[in-house]
Amino acid sequence: MPSAPIRVTVWGENVHEHKNETVKKIYPHGMHNVIADGLREVLGDRVVVKTATLDLPEHGLPPEVLDNTDVLTWWGHAAHGKVEDAVVERVHKRVLAGMGLLVLHSGHYSKIFKKLMGTGCGLKWREAGERERLWCVNPGHPIADGLGEYFELPHTEMYGEFFDIPQPDELVFISWFEGGEVFRSGCTWQRGKGRVFYFRPGHETFPIYYDANVRRVIANGVQWAAPTQGSPYALAAPNIKTPLSPIQSSHVADESLHEHQRKG
Amino acid sequence: MPSAPIRVTVWGENVHEHKNETVKKIYPHGMHNVIADGLREVLGDRVVVKTATLDLPEHGLPPEVLDNTDVLTWWGHAAHGKVEDAVVERVHKRVLAGMGLLVLHSGHYSKIFKKLMGTGCGLKWREAGERERLWCVNPGHPIADGLGEYFELPHTEMYGEFFDIPQPDELVFISWFEGGEVFRSGCTWQRGKGRVFYFRPGHETFPIYYDANVRRVIANGVQWAAPTQGSPYALAAPNIKTPLSPIQSSHVADESLHEHQRKG
Amino acid sequence: MPSAPIRVTVWGENVHEHKNETVKKIYPHGMHNVIADGLREVLGDRVVVKTATLDLPEHGLPPEVLDNTDVLTWWGHAAHGKVEDAVVERVHKRVLAGMGLLVLHSGHYSKIFKKLMGTGCGLKWREAGERERLWCVNPGHPIADGLGEYFELPHTEMYGEFFDIPQPDELVFISWFEGGEVFRSGCTWQRGKGRVFYFRPGHETFPIYYDANVRRVIANGVQWAAPTQGSPYALAAPNIKTPLSPIQSSHVADESLHEHQRKG
Amino acid sequence: MPSAPIRVTVWGENVHEHKNETVKKIYPHGMHNVIADGLREVLGDRVVVKTATLDLPEHGLPPEVLDNTDVLTWWGHAAHGKVEDAVVERVHKRVLAGMGLLVLHSGHYSKIFKKLMGTGCGLKWREAGERERLWCVNPGHPIADGLGEYFELPHTEMYGEFFDIPQPDELVFISWFEGGEVFRSGCTWQRGKGRVFYFRPGHETFPIYYDANVRRVIANGVQWAAPTQGSPYALAAPNIKTPLSPIQSSHVADESLHEHQRKG
Repeated sequence: MPSAPIRVTVWGENVHEHKNETVKKIYPHGMHNVIADGLREVLGDRVVVKTATLDLPEHGLPPEVLDNTDVLTWWGHAAHGKVEDAVVERVHKRVLAGMGLLVLHSGHYSKIFKKLMGTGCGLKWREAGERERLWCVNPGHPIADGLGEYFELPHTEMYGEFFDIPQPDELVFISWFEGGEVFRSGCTWQRGKGRVFYFRPGHETFPIYYDANVRRVIANGVQWAAPTQGSPYALAAPNIKTPLSPIQSSHVADESLHEHQRKG
Repeated sequence: MPSAPIRVTVWGENVHEHKNETVKKIYPHGMHNVIADGLREVLGDRVVVKTATLDLPEHGLPPEVLDNTDVLTWWGHAAHGKVEDAVVERVHKRVLAGMGLLVLHSGHYSKIFKKLMGTGCGLKWREAGERERLWCVNPGHPIADGLGEYFELPHTEMYGEFFDIPQPDELVFISWFEGGEVFRSGCTWQRGKGRVFYFRPGHETFPIYYDANVRRVIANGVQWAAPTQGSPYALAAPNIKTPLSPIQSSHVADESLHEHQRKG
Repeated sequence: MPSAPIRVTVWGENVHEHKNETVKKIYPHGMHNVIADGLREVLGDRVVVKTATLDLPEHGLPPEVLDNTDVLTWWGHAAHGKVEDAVVERVHKRVLAGMGLLVLHSGHYSKIFKKLMGTGCGLKWREAGERERLWCVNPGHPIADGLGEYFELPHTEMYGEFFDIPQPDELVFISWFEGGEVFRSGCTWQRGKGRVFYFRPGHETFPIYYDANVRRVIANGVQWAAPTQGSPYALAAPNIKTPLSPIQSSHVADESLHEHQRKG
Repeated sequence: MPSAPIRVTVWGENVHEHKNETVKKIYPHGMHNVIADGLREVLGDRVVVKTATLDLPEHGLPPEVLDNTDVLTWWGHAAHGKVEDAVVERVHKRVLAGMGLLVLHSGHYSKIFKKLMGTGCGLKWREAGERERLWCVNPGHPIADGLGEYFELPHTEMYGEFFDIPQPDELVFISWFEGGEVFRSGCTWQRGKGRVFYFRPGHETFPIYYDANVRRVIANGVQWAAPTQGSPYALAAPNIKTPLSPIQSSHVADESLHEHQRKG
């Protein structure tokens, strides 16, 4: 059974890349293209990867794009507030209907992540270019496929606890930072039929998305988040008038009231 | 150490009670007052209970009320859309800061519950006055205190799966319905520092909130959801400039870039 | 990337089939062979299925069999106590090392299931040949692939709550029984690198393992439980003498003691 | 409602204290007595604390002691294998029946913890007297009451991931170690009606159990783990012959067989 390739849309805010010289040098064609290249490198013909950015009409995410996306990856930072609510609603509905979502690094404060989590999604941060070590705490998880017990990133922005998220369904990585903090860096949640994976690394001023381990995790995450068939799901509250099994104790509310009054 | 009483605000939409003769007969002073009486009956001086309704200014939930509420209970059905977004935001922030929230019955479709869950919160339903049996699947949970293995409600509105919620942190009750469905009827989640308990029973045309077992569960839920001190929590993303431990590998982004270019 | 077929061993106690006329008629070649046939029917060349039974040396589960098993399914009932502890230990280690395990029906009381759960694993039961309806409460789960919102079994043994298990990592199915009980019928847990799926249906006096939906769930379960590569895992507590990062505050215990005495 | 004091039994292996000069100096009367003193210091008359040690008959845990224990704390290291299986069974049954259990530090490898977890419970370790910083990742949890965002221990034995436990029901603390590792240091699980809390700090050659924050966490843990009433629980599998609701589709197994044969 040769499966169809996973259709991935890599969404990038693509703002820092035009404003900051350091970022421009690291990601001359935008972070989104480097993330997309990483997926192609690791997964080959198991994926078909397209990109979309904030500046496009509907941020590059009109219904026909989302309807043909199995997994969406999201990187944003400077312009979360510029993402239109209508697009956020559309992405939200697609996730509930089964589309996978990978939220990367500063995407923790994106509208879509906050909407799916229901919490504040804040965290601590420091830009000191310090060492990070990501420890795997779930060695049987497919997102950890092919990784060691831990992997290192020599220079990163620090994210520290408390990370204001609902307790993850599965915790896959915990980061150690040289400056003294820890962080839940790889977290999964189910929302409706969709799977959500948050992965911490990725600051714009460091070449994180060229790192082989980071690319592997993102590729694993895409494969893990790709929709399965599952069973029926609907965003609705249907009235089921005909019972599946016979009801013998049924009666109308007024009788119920009388019974109550007799008792009370 | 005599604890201070738990300050409870019982919020009621209070719409059906004015429009529907059956509901008016069962709850002549509104459902919220019967829920409040139930809490006073079970918990005595361990609670101080007030009520608030949709028709009041700010729906009876101005900052000074919420700031002095330990646990809020929420019943709404016909007028979810009339609840102002500003009040929903305020309640949301208070839950994250530690206020407990009990969402009752048709409150599953309230703005505040959907915002905290991040999912669609739909379900199946049928009004046939059928028998419901709530089974305890977590006998060590304080919300099950003093209950039997199960308890029955002779005539209820049915709610059926799939209930579109994130998997509960703890599942306490599962309902059996005569007509053939099941439902996760008692579910808990942590959001920020606040605890959320969803409890299913409570249709307006049946005298559910006079039932001794239902009153016991709601009272247990209030005690469980009351805030504990915990540790610090903030809705923020602070920049921690000074590391707690010395950083030796720090360097500026440009160097990082150079290193990358040397490698790449 | 054509994956290798999943190597499944279907373990059957195979006692009732020789003692009870009803069971003999339904399963003339043993339940294990019908379960194995079901897997072959649904999964074709995606699986290679073998069987093993209690009466064989080492119950058919010597190291060379387990080492070449990706997923083991377990049905036992009358002779849990006759399963040798050494074999249980061996299976346990293989699960922690990544082998998937499907525990079926009365296997809830098997030594291996109790050892993996850490709880009593008791439940209620009734043999009245009543109707069961299994509702899916996790429509995005791969174990629910291709199923409806629910499926029915016309005549079953009832299992009722409280089912004495640790809260499942994921709850996939809840059963409704005609006689009034509910049951968490499809439950998953991770143990070490291995995945465990408990699936309720399967009483020996009803032809449950011929049912198309049951066969589909078991086949889905096998695919879900098949090992992934993951990251390193060891049943050990290694001493890591050389730190990964420099330690500056190190000192010997006696100094620590002195410091304490100065303080205390 | 003045609650009765929580009856705590502090169990200590009490072997190192007699063999190692450093340990003897730090804990001249045994670690168990210092842990007990800490509980009395923090909780005053809210607890009644007794101790028990390995060398006593039945390790100081005969039925009449366990039956009158609300919460048991467990520290062992050098002599896990000397704890009698019959005592482990007795403690296990008491936990399932509702007794709280705090497992401290090297107790991760005790028979009772492994039996309750169902996994290998291994971890990495290093004795370098390095700095540990425990971060709270669940600020609304009662076990974090009164603590800061983190607290430090200047000199500790390191425990590192992968810690081979089932994913905790709730993760409260994550440790950062100076040498580069992280660890899930405060974890909770429900087993039967009993609550289990694992708390990492406590190496015998450092005066950990005199630390004010450690004492606070253990005291919070005892309060959290104290039994609640809950609903009925039994270590049994009762046959429920009389259904709660009428069964119409009942029939004997032979008919079921015939039906199957007609179909098949």
